[in-house]
Amino acid sequence: MTRGMKVTVGVMGSAGGELAAEVCAKVFRLGEAIGRTDCILITGACPGLPHEAVKGAKTAGGLTVGISPGHTLQEHVELYQSPTDHLDVLIFTGSGLMGREITAVRSCDIVVVVGGRSGTLGEFAIAYDEGKLIGVLRGTGGIAESVDQIVAFVDKDTGAEVVYDTDPDRLLQRLLDCLPAHKTPSPARAAGA
Amino acid sequence: MTRGMKVTVGVMGSAGGELAAEVCAKVFRLGEAIGRTDCILITGACPGLPHEAVKGAKTAGGLTVGISPGHTLQEHVELYQSPTDHLDVLIFTGSGLMGREITAVRSCDIVVVVGGRSGTLGEFAIAYDEGKLIGVLRGTGGIAESVDQIVAFVDKDTGAEVVYDTDPDRLLQRLLDCLPAHKTPSPARAAGA
Amino acid sequence: MTRGMKVTVGVMGSAGGELAAEVCAKVFRLGEAIGRTDCILITGACPGLPHEAVKGAKTAGGLTVGISPGHTLQEHVELYQSPTDHLDVLIFTGSGLMGREITAVRSCDIVVVVGGRSGTLGEFAIAYDEGKLIGVLRGTGGIAESVDQIVAFVDKDTGAEVVYDTDPDRLLQRLLDCLPAHKTPSPARAAGA
Amino acid sequence: MTRGMKVTVGVMGSAGGELAAEVCAKVFRLGEAIGRTDCILITGACPGLPHEAVKGAKTAGGLTVGISPGHTLQEHVELYQSPTDHLDVLIFTGSGLMGREITAVRSCDIVVVVGGRSGTLGEFAIAYDEGKLIGVLRGTGGIAESVDQIVAFVDKDTGAEVVYDTDPDRLLQRLLDCLPAHKTPSPARAAGA
Repeated sequence: MTRGMKVTVGVMGSAGGELAAEVCAKVFRLGEAIGRTDCILITGACPGLPHEAVKGAKTAGGLTVGISPGHTLQEHVELYQSPTDHLDVLIFTGSGLMGREITAVRSCDIVVVVGGRSGTLGEFAIAYDEGKLIGVLRGTGGIAESVDQIVAFVDKDTGAEVVYDTDPDRLLQRLLDCLPAHKTPSPARAAGA
Repeated sequence: MTRGMKVTVGVMGSAGGELAAEVCAKVFRLGEAIGRTDCILITGACPGLPHEAVKGAKTAGGLTVGISPGHTLQEHVELYQSPTDHLDVLIFTGSGLMGREITAVRSCDIVVVVGGRSGTLGEFAIAYDEGKLIGVLRGTGGIAESVDQIVAFVDKDTGAEVVYDTDPDRLLQRLLDCLPAHKTPSPARAAGA
Repeated sequence: MTRGMKVTVGVMGSAGGELAAEVCAKVFRLGEAIGRTDCILITGACPGLPHEAVKGAKTAGGLTVGISPGHTLQEHVELYQSPTDHLDVLIFTGSGLMGREITAVRSCDIVVVVGGRSGTLGEFAIAYDEGKLIGVLRGTGGIAESVDQIVAFVDKDTGAEVVYDTDPDRLLQRLLDCLPAHKTPSPARAAGA
Repeated sequence: MTRGMKVTVGVMGSAGGELAAEVCAKVFRLGEAIGRTDCILITGACPGLPHEAVKGAKTAGGLTVGISPGHTLQEHVELYQSPTDHLDVLIFTGSGLMGREITAVRSCDIVVVVGGRSGTLGEFAIAYDEGKLIGVLRGTGGIAESVDQIVAFVDKDTGAEVVYDTDPDRLLQRLLDCLPAHKTPSPARAAGA
């Protein structure tokens, strides 16, 4: 199918915990690459690493969309302590941190994992189970360093493809090269959990 | 709270049925006004009247976001027979026609009803119950012509405000004038259905 | 399709506001009828009229299921000030008052409107748009008294059927008589909002 | 908080793939234990291992609830090829395989992982991130055998507790012993993904 729309790239990863300066810089560069190639950046509208990507994408003139867990802007800011700067559009799902991940992942042509803990693991699992094209930015710590082992544990062909790279620009380019041939399966391809 | 973001305006209304040319033109003008005032237009990514607004907004250089019922682009196009043209971003909720309305309404600072039938009635009910600022474009048929009676039936102060006008430009201007003073209540303000 | 399962009946209506004793008694009798006929009662797990039905159904030995707006039991009780007594199962959607309505309505073979304000209007709109078999208990005030006018405003054939009665036992019996012939359409029957 | 309701136990695991007879028997015994101790069994209403638990629970006279990905019973059966037998209540979320997992996990006091692939990984991640009490039935293959390594990768204290056992009866008993002291945190405990 001809999409005729800009490519959407999700950046999913650690929203909190200790974030090393060089990891932040790397994810900022990923965001810049997304903006520069005229892709749309989608995140869970959280702080931390995904927000570094948001800042990078805006620096490069990209469009940024955040899928918020909150019902309202006020909940987004006060309850979830999440940012509004550098985001062009906020979508309020009102379904909480893990609920909003479904919408965020489904809205991405490509999902990139950076660092990450249990929330990111959920996003990876959704993306993998729904057969997405997935990038893993190596050298960002957290579950990004363990995705290959997790894929081995899962042992299921869902149609997902996973691309690993340590360099943000090269990772994005490789993903964009894969995208035209990648087929996301229909949503109910046989249920097997 | 300072939003610091562009105002989001939803246009909700008839996706099908007979759509008179002058009604389509009126909703297109509403979309143009939304684009011209640098608001972001949000719809349910459906065909029909809301898509007229999308085309108007793009004509005026605005940003357009569609909240799709589908899990994927393919479902959006094939199962829901919904458009992709003139939409900058599609958000895939995968929760169906009525499920995606929750996310669409929550993401709007202002919701405008144009024409509409039972789907739009649902969107109006959500917007009203969640205390939104609501516009009704008179002269577009459907439930837009009956909203005042429906509000009387509902007989509940939710914090919602409803502004009626026959002219799309004036309606939007009046809504934008109301917005700074409008307070959307917190999501659980006492449950009373 | 042979269901082979018990019939699920939703009771949707006013969770707050002034509730007259005779209206409460009437809805309690509706709950008793649901329990006595071995149907499963589903509500939004809210206080008010739907909870009267819950108490009636348990009195008659029925099974009761509440679809909660909360993420957790604690949110259910503290944030939404909702009951847990007389409910056999609580389902926690975590998607808020209007979000949980989607799940509640979809889970019902039959939806009965009692009294009600804007939340109930949303539930009615979802049920109507998704082509459900709907009962309206007349004499319970609120939007239950206006549903016929709202149906006229909507002016769309969705496959929904609406049965009106002032007597709770007779209403349920008429709905159960209609159910075998009622066809709920597929979820994407042409999008028209 | 006094719950005053029956304990809900989710069984999440492989819905498809090769399922060894002894693994099926073990999960059936887990279901029997859930039914015998008067807990409510919740699954994703899928076939495979979770349905073995459903059959076991009904054999022991328990109550069984399935959280379906479908909008309707017809979608449940035809699109998702999912069972209706031995299930007392089906809840139709209409939000797809991964979307319905949110509601399923949130509705459980205890989540037990049996076997499992990427869908189950998602359920585990949601349960872990939301701080649930989690059981892992060892000897059922799939990700159940790798949960301890995945927990090490995640490296985040969310309040979740994980109990491992090879024996279904003993696992359930240990989980029920832990439950009174287990505190599920509030839904927005600091966002960190």
